[in-house]
Amino acid sequence: MIDFYEIVGLVAAIITTAAFLPQVFKTYKTKDTSGLSLSMYISFLFGVVLWLIYGFHLKSLPMILANSVTIISTLYLVAMKLKYK
Amino acid sequence: MIDFYEIVGLVAAIITTAAFLPQVFKTYKTKDTSGLSLSMYISFLFGVVLWLIYGFHLKSLPMILANSVTIISTLYLVAMKLKYK
Repeated sequence: MIDFYEIVGLVAAIITTAAFLPQVFKTYKTKDTSGLSLSMYISFLFGVVLWLIYGFHLKSLPMILANSVTIISTLYLVAMKLKYK
Repeated sequence: MIDFYEIVGLVAAIITTAAFLPQVFKTYKTKDTSGLSLSMYISFLFGVVLWLIYGFHLKSLPMILANSVTIISTLYLVAMKLKYK
């Protein structure tokens, strides 16, 4: 049976990952990346990759899922920033 | 001795928490909260509180530190949004 705390972690993962999506959709629709800081997103990407490594170490499904999705979203924003800068 | 993966987690915590600070400083300086979504920040706050509970469950120092600082930053942004909306 899935642990109660794993469910807490999964709900946390869904909420905080979803909070990031409006930015992704906005950038997808408008192609306007003028408000995005490339250095900030590249630093953030590096941090999220480290969280993913740490999540694998802890064998934490919520951390692995949340950070994988966030890496994909962040890579997309970085790519859009580089394409439309 | 501190575990290698705990250091990875701590560096991840510092980077991703620091990525949030420019928003906090900008809001502190300008008091301009027009671009902040209250519902998004309140949802995000709820998610980060769940991450903190999960971090305590995992006895993960990086998760406890990162989420505590993020809760304080997010509470501050929510308070500013309510005050200056």
